[in-house]
Amino acid sequence: MVLRVAVAGATGYAGGELLRLLLAHPHVEIGALTGASSAGSRLGDVSPHLTPLADRVIEATTPETLAGHDVVFLALPHGTSAAVAEALGPDVLVVDCGADFRLTDPAAWEQFYGSPHAGSWPYGLPELPGQRELLAGTRRVAVPGCYPTATTLALLPAVAGGLVDGHDVVVVAASGPSGAGKSLKPHLLGAELMGSASAYGVGGGHRHTPEILQNLRVAGATGTPTLSFTPVLVPMSRGILATCTAPLVDPEITAEAAYAVYAEMLADEPFVQLLPPGVWPQTQSVLGSNVVQVQVTVDRAAGRLVAVAALDNLTKGTAGGAVQCMNLALGLPETTGLPRVGVAP
Amino acid sequence: MVLRVAVAGATGYAGGELLRLLLAHPHVEIGALTGASSAGSRLGDVSPHLTPLADRVIEATTPETLAGHDVVFLALPHGTSAAVAEALGPDVLVVDCGADFRLTDPAAWEQFYGSPHAGSWPYGLPELPGQRELLAGTRRVAVPGCYPTATTLALLPAVAGGLVDGHDVVVVAASGPSGAGKSLKPHLLGAELMGSASAYGVGGGHRHTPEILQNLRVAGATGTPTLSFTPVLVPMSRGILATCTAPLVDPEITAEAAYAVYAEMLADEPFVQLLPPGVWPQTQSVLGSNVVQVQVTVDRAAGRLVAVAALDNLTKGTAGGAVQCMNLALGLPETTGLPRVGVAP
Amino acid sequence: MVLRVAVAGATGYAGGELLRLLLAHPHVEIGALTGASSAGSRLGDVSPHLTPLADRVIEATTPETLAGHDVVFLALPHGTSAAVAEALGPDVLVVDCGADFRLTDPAAWEQFYGSPHAGSWPYGLPELPGQRELLAGTRRVAVPGCYPTATTLALLPAVAGGLVDGHDVVVVAASGPSGAGKSLKPHLLGAELMGSASAYGVGGGHRHTPEILQNLRVAGATGTPTLSFTPVLVPMSRGILATCTAPLVDPEITAEAAYAVYAEMLADEPFVQLLPPGVWPQTQSVLGSNVVQVQVTVDRAAGRLVAVAALDNLTKGTAGGAVQCMNLALGLPETTGLPRVGVAP
Amino acid sequence: MVLRVAVAGATGYAGGELLRLLLAHPHVEIGALTGASSAGSRLGDVSPHLTPLADRVIEATTPETLAGHDVVFLALPHGTSAAVAEALGPDVLVVDCGADFRLTDPAAWEQFYGSPHAGSWPYGLPELPGQRELLAGTRRVAVPGCYPTATTLALLPAVAGGLVDGHDVVVVAASGPSGAGKSLKPHLLGAELMGSASAYGVGGGHRHTPEILQNLRVAGATGTPTLSFTPVLVPMSRGILATCTAPLVDPEITAEAAYAVYAEMLADEPFVQLLPPGVWPQTQSVLGSNVVQVQVTVDRAAGRLVAVAALDNLTKGTAGGAVQCMNLALGLPETTGLPRVGVAP
Repeated sequence: MVLRVAVAGATGYAGGELLRLLLAHPHVEIGALTGASSAGSRLGDVSPHLTPLADRVIEATTPETLAGHDVVFLALPHGTSAAVAEALGPDVLVVDCGADFRLTDPAAWEQFYGSPHAGSWPYGLPELPGQRELLAGTRRVAVPGCYPTATTLALLPAVAGGLVDGHDVVVVAASGPSGAGKSLKPHLLGAELMGSASAYGVGGGHRHTPEILQNLRVAGATGTPTLSFTPVLVPMSRGILATCTAPLVDPEITAEAAYAVYAEMLADEPFVQLLPPGVWPQTQSVLGSNVVQVQVTVDRAAGRLVAVAALDNLTKGTAGGAVQCMNLALGLPETTGLPRVGVAP
Repeated sequence: MVLRVAVAGATGYAGGELLRLLLAHPHVEIGALTGASSAGSRLGDVSPHLTPLADRVIEATTPETLAGHDVVFLALPHGTSAAVAEALGPDVLVVDCGADFRLTDPAAWEQFYGSPHAGSWPYGLPELPGQRELLAGTRRVAVPGCYPTATTLALLPAVAGGLVDGHDVVVVAASGPSGAGKSLKPHLLGAELMGSASAYGVGGGHRHTPEILQNLRVAGATGTPTLSFTPVLVPMSRGILATCTAPLVDPEITAEAAYAVYAEMLADEPFVQLLPPGVWPQTQSVLGSNVVQVQVTVDRAAGRLVAVAALDNLTKGTAGGAVQCMNLALGLPETTGLPRVGVAP
Repeated sequence: MVLRVAVAGATGYAGGELLRLLLAHPHVEIGALTGASSAGSRLGDVSPHLTPLADRVIEATTPETLAGHDVVFLALPHGTSAAVAEALGPDVLVVDCGADFRLTDPAAWEQFYGSPHAGSWPYGLPELPGQRELLAGTRRVAVPGCYPTATTLALLPAVAGGLVDGHDVVVVAASGPSGAGKSLKPHLLGAELMGSASAYGVGGGHRHTPEILQNLRVAGATGTPTLSFTPVLVPMSRGILATCTAPLVDPEITAEAAYAVYAEMLADEPFVQLLPPGVWPQTQSVLGSNVVQVQVTVDRAAGRLVAVAALDNLTKGTAGGAVQCMNLALGLPETTGLPRVGVAP
Repeated sequence: MVLRVAVAGATGYAGGELLRLLLAHPHVEIGALTGASSAGSRLGDVSPHLTPLADRVIEATTPETLAGHDVVFLALPHGTSAAVAEALGPDVLVVDCGADFRLTDPAAWEQFYGSPHAGSWPYGLPELPGQRELLAGTRRVAVPGCYPTATTLALLPAVAGGLVDGHDVVVVAASGPSGAGKSLKPHLLGAELMGSASAYGVGGGHRHTPEILQNLRVAGATGTPTLSFTPVLVPMSRGILATCTAPLVDPEITAEAAYAVYAEMLADEPFVQLLPPGVWPQTQSVLGSNVVQVQVTVDRAAGRLVAVAALDNLTKGTAGGAVQCMNLALGLPETTGLPRVGVAP
């Protein structure tokens, strides 16, 4: 099988990571690469790490340039995917790395994004209960946000396994700035970021908050989930380390029992790895890989479960997750072409 | 006034920071510098940033070398301060940067440190209610740990101001590795740390946990405080960014009201700065300074107050806090010789 | 003596560093702070590390706002200093951190900057032979570039001491990106810089090249100096480490003899420190200080002297050097208010 | 073809990188993993990024554990490879990542390593003239050092193409600390390295100096090559950026002409990529890949060619180069299993 694949938004960070992974995928032939302000430039000038594609020229993002592909990945600004997808027709697999079709609740969308809701597509987190079935054969995928992927996978076994019920979840997630894309904003300058940690979007305003809550409900949260979510920028290019805590349903649950629940529920997940007891996740271990590393324990005195997840925000957090969904949608083995070893140290 | 000051443990990170600050103190004359394995070496070979002291030779840490000083700072391994202090006599001001005399509860000490409790000294966090009075004139000071300083100052106005009552506090604190000292451990190697974030001491086991709880009680927590505390190593040499959340006593409290409480309670603190509304702390801003920067908001949907504090773990978090206490103990203006401007960017 | 001091360009990196140092200067009262796009904003919102000035409002850079000061520091874009300085009159001390008045040779200026030469002012590197005399009493100072300061001070004792004659100098200087200012350029984004080293301005095109050559001539280079200069961006916010090599005039010179020449020539310099034998400079040791640390050796097999210098590009490399010159121009002790201890680790 | 491959020294940085690459190699089955102090531990506890091998137990490095493999990679301390190789017999392919068999000149070995010379094996830099022929079918390979690989490939087209003749070469190479291995030395601690650049091995003493000179001679240097080589540690985990200059044989050579020579000589190299004109190497672009990116120009005023190379010291600089040589030695296509796209940003 040879799939002809286009990437819209090819010169951004998500687009570049898609190309890195697609170049290693055995069934992919890379077709059109499109961009906005970068149209007309050579990829080798803009993204010199993509050695085999150095001579490719970026085209404009139009229905014409994207036509004739089996798969189109969208790595576009929020609010632009719907029109592009419509023009591509229903038979093309469209995998959207943006937010437009992630939320099922129009009210949540409008509260956090301030624009009309475009609708929702099958949500690209195969590890959620029932989600692989929804993704099989679909021609539309909404790839999750990077923080929701990290947080959901950290807590999923706890919620689905009944250790916690989703109320009063508190998450603090350290992240590198590549998740913010190639935006020219002063606080994303290297001189501002290096040697410094800083919080942003504090107090419930980050747009990934409703997406995480939606996932906790899908995971089986029996109460009304609430979430205090704080992202923290730290001085590394890539990576998210999410520290997630929630009150234990049963204060007598031991760390060993919680670990056993995680071990059982994650046993068959190809990309979620429960670390050996006592080993805690570090983002370096998953750099460039599609793996999420997870560890869990119980804080008896505080009455809380504490789970930590590490992932690469551009790989499993965006582009790797997107390729994983492409595999599922097209009936390929889920792990095809996806690295499982991080570039460490 | 000229104070003759000795530093025991002068070649570690805390000792070096003490010397950096003491060199800028107008009333200090630097006396003996002592060490263990570094005894006999020249300071310029070990700590080349201390330019004016480059020719000083490190002596052994003994009662004889430390005798004859007005002030002795101890930056020693846990468990060694008591014997040194006793030999110095009651008239010398002894400021201990280690943990030995921080906790008032012997049971908490034994649970977390696994050794007999040495007792407690006046606790060197002047911003706690009533603490300045206890420090005035004392000849013994237990300098707080770096995480407790950050966390306590982030939450102190909320606890003392009645916004939260100290139950179910959740704190995740990003930190650079200098807080771990110059220990030769594999996980502290630069190749392991750079480009990586990692959690450690997860689940309630970090030794700063009982110290933070003790402080919340001193701050006026009306319930039985509980704390889920997770430290996270991030790739910067210095700095702590503590994200602290606690359930609101009154769910109707607004962000503006919480800010107003912080503004009033911090108005006279020389080293705790509430940032302008909307500006969130970053560790870079306080690098090398004795200032803690704080911001607060309310997450209405989650029912939690969220406060963030940034400090330099070696300055306000250790050596600067120690000098601040020296000033108070000896009747000097509290801010004498202490920088209030960070080295940013 | 109280000097009323204005800073034009106060919200850039150089302006912020000037304010950090001026706040610690015993004879300075900080007057107008001016900016371009930042005019009207509060300093606490833009530069939160400058705690004591948080409430100051930035004014526009005009003759009126800058009037009435004893000293005006200019941290402005190239090409704008001449007009500002003229409006201030001849009695005000104007210290220009920009390039406009550094070069004495109009042809070199026009070749590297592509605009008409504005003239030259006394050059603010007091360590050059005869330069302190030129700076004493002057009312105009051209502060050197950061790379020229590092490179010149690394090689000055070798050139002035006759170890090398200035021909075939090769310099590679690693630098943090703060030297490029707060410019919103893609290659200065944190995600691009962290975890990466990159060369720029390669092949003789960097604008600091003619300035370094000018300094080598002033230092006493007896041949026609030539210079291969390559700057390299590395992942740290501040700091320059300049590795400088030049052919030995006498291939029999030993490392010890070279060290002795350096020791003698630098003995009285307050801000240039020759490290103990065998200790090589690291930028961390001088972070935030006005010190340049230097070491030298001889590579017998290669026939070259190798000298390495470390400085903080914003302190001794810009703002600290500027304050040092202010002290000299106004007859204050040269070291007044300037830190000599770096913030390490 | 299935090759059974053992890695001796599997828990070090070079060993870990070998395993990362070998896991992606289509013809490799990973056999014994051996270590010294790590023997008995599980790989998942020591090197958690190697997800698929997490349950493997490290064995002792003995002839018995290494027996029965087609290929044995040695990532051992200097001086230990000879004995291990001898015990393996002549039919096993032994690829040594250490220094023992790199130098052909016993005098150079003894001068720089201070021990008796063990001999020399075919040198694992296929890009050197004639080297692919020497590597085809060999059963012993000496993998080059990381600095020699970067420097040699930066200068090889210039030397072989007659642009420079190898005299008075000056190289300054910025490197991350992973090249130093997992050694517990104070200067390799994260707190010392982050935010800091420092030179080491200055003045001709670095052990890679004679190896680079040897390579320049093999490349065709017509004079007696001399080299001033200075390594600089910078704050990134991996990566080398080598800035290499040498006097032009003909001062009239233009940058365009030099570029054309490089383009022609590198046209068929699968792992050495000449970047588009005006694009300069950055280490991020080759992170985790086996590619060296190169750019060249001419500094007419200085009379020097300047070439810059970027590589990943653990991949092309060590383990990737080793696998490339394994492929050649065993008659596989040279690029089998080796990544050509870096993990950027």
